[in-house]
Amino acid sequence: MRDYSIGIDIGGTKIAGAIVDRQGNIIHKRICETPSESKERVLQVLANLVIEFHQLVEKENIRLVGIGVGSAGQINFNEGIILSGTDNIHGWYHVEVCDYLKQFTTLPIFLDNDVNTFTIAEYQLGSARGIENLVCLTLGTGIGGGVIAEGSMLRGEWGGAAELGHMSVNMYGPSCNCGSRGCLETYASGTGIANRMRERLQNNDSLADWEVALYRKNQRSITSKDVFEWKELGASIATEVAEEALQALAYGMMNMIHTFNPTAIILGGGLIDGNRDLVPAVQKRVSKLGMASLVQPVTIRSSSLGEDTGLIGAALQVWM
Amino acid sequence: MRDYSIGIDIGGTKIAGAIVDRQGNIIHKRICETPSESKERVLQVLANLVIEFHQLVEKENIRLVGIGVGSAGQINFNEGIILSGTDNIHGWYHVEVCDYLKQFTTLPIFLDNDVNTFTIAEYQLGSARGIENLVCLTLGTGIGGGVIAEGSMLRGEWGGAAELGHMSVNMYGPSCNCGSRGCLETYASGTGIANRMRERLQNNDSLADWEVALYRKNQRSITSKDVFEWKELGASIATEVAEEALQALAYGMMNMIHTFNPTAIILGGGLIDGNRDLVPAVQKRVSKLGMASLVQPVTIRSSSLGEDTGLIGAALQVWM
Ligand SMILES: [Zn+2]
Ligand SMILES: [Zn+2]
Repeated sequence: MRDYSIGIDIGGTKIAGAIVDRQGNIIHKRICETPSESKERVLQVLANLVIEFHQLVEKENIRLVGIGVGSAGQINFNEGIILSGTDNIHGWYHVEVCDYLKQFTTLPIFLDNDVNTFTIAEYQLGSARGIENLVCLTLGTGIGGGVIAEGSMLRGEWGGAAELGHMSVNMYGPSCNCGSRGCLETYASGTGIANRMRERLQNNDSLADWEVALYRKNQRSITSKDVFEWKELGASIATEVAEEALQALAYGMMNMIHTFNPTAIILGGGLIDGNRDLVPAVQKRVSKLGMASLVQPVTIRSSSLGEDTGLIGAALQVWM
Repeated sequence: MRDYSIGIDIGGTKIAGAIVDRQGNIIHKRICETPSESKERVLQVLANLVIEFHQLVEKENIRLVGIGVGSAGQINFNEGIILSGTDNIHGWYHVEVCDYLKQFTTLPIFLDNDVNTFTIAEYQLGSARGIENLVCLTLGTGIGGGVIAEGSMLRGEWGGAAELGHMSVNMYGPSCNCGSRGCLETYASGTGIANRMRERLQNNDSLADWEVALYRKNQRSITSKDVFEWKELGASIATEVAEEALQALAYGMMNMIHTFNPTAIILGGGLIDGNRDLVPAVQKRVSKLGMASLVQPVTIRSSSLGEDTGLIGAALQVWM
């Protein structure tokens, strides 16, 4: 009998559940809408998934060995509590997920944030298979980090480690919502890139007419995708913003290399999936920085896993 | 019979050796000048210490369980090699310390850098006793880092992890000898503080006469101690430099808190030993930065161990 795990991925708009084997194969999958009205309703959805999957496996005579739940936000891993996560769910803070689910199962239950489950998936099955000293960064609306140090997830005291999006690379930089300045997220996340672009547009009045016209098309709803497209067209401000994002990312990654002595950094998330050229561009910059003995051996790659990575990574916690 | 370890601390000017118990008590101690002419001569000194200590314990009927060597510089911990260290010793790079000493002993031998051995001493016997998630920083001529993550030394792939002095807190900051910019070391080490002071003096010509006179006393051989003394006298440039050093240190420490989720940071080294007021000053700044869930629980303390910390820490590697 092969071993299987229940993986559950809690997102702001949908909750996905699956029965997954150690190789990441999904044999059953369910997707539900995330009920935004209360945390009690969300917990009910999780419980129903657990109950349904238990019933399914009884009929099929397969062995379940554990449950892994992944969620955005800050997680107390030791106690299985979501401290804070998506704003989409009303009252979604201090949610005792593991304690609640224990009412419906005798299996061991693990809860971690979605960047750590992404890291586990990359480590066990993806671009970073078997790389024992590894840093993963997800670049999307925000920036998240996950670290494998000598084969173990780095968690720290209660599971809050690897908040690498809030590593400052400029103590005189733009204010970050974390209370600091110049965090990686303020320069190189989707939100950060768009904010920096808007800021520069407001403080610039010496542009060529064609560039002004280009930016006007989109001034209210600028995205990081716009910034990279405008850069391709040779627009000066967009180029400055994109270059600064790459430079901040390179400095952040150099800091992580000096800190962890890893052999690989994996980049994932929406920004990378939408623009794979960012990976060689940032690799080139990193290779010029820092201590050669630490920086030169590091491989920088993009994530190799598909759309179910969050779900599979959640399930794989059971074998980490 | 109690267990003892041989500790050896290789410095640029002297080499110290001792027989140490698990509580850090020294029962025999030897100090030799560091022969600067060649690495072979230095290795000979190490071998003689090992041989002499073996002979001593035979007479006294005590049990040796291992040898721990500490040295400045970059160390390949896995292979027991000093990659680079002090410039005081001619040809002092790629020194295969552990392989060499194996000719003279059957005991297990450990080699690590002096910031890691300091960290081990603080963790086993000092201010950070039993703190399983811990960051140590030594502020001297340069800045070194050591990290305990969930009770283990963080080493990374070959032992190069925790180069925290080369964490950049300003990607537009002053050039660092590591090839990067704005490293903690460029702002908050003894050398960095003195360099920043000289830089500002060269670029300033609107000072009050008394302040110009104050600085003239010492212009060629400025030290960080001068800068902090001038600040106490209310001198404007020295105050700016000292404040920037504290701010850089606070940003670096916040980055480390976001990265490691520790419960304590220990500050040591010449700068702290010479000015304990720096600890509350930097603590105050850190408490205003970053994510409260991670930052608020962290205690910041100064090192509590005395002058033999390097030697004792080297010996304690055997029990880590
Ligand atoms: Zn931040
Ligand atoms: Zn540096």
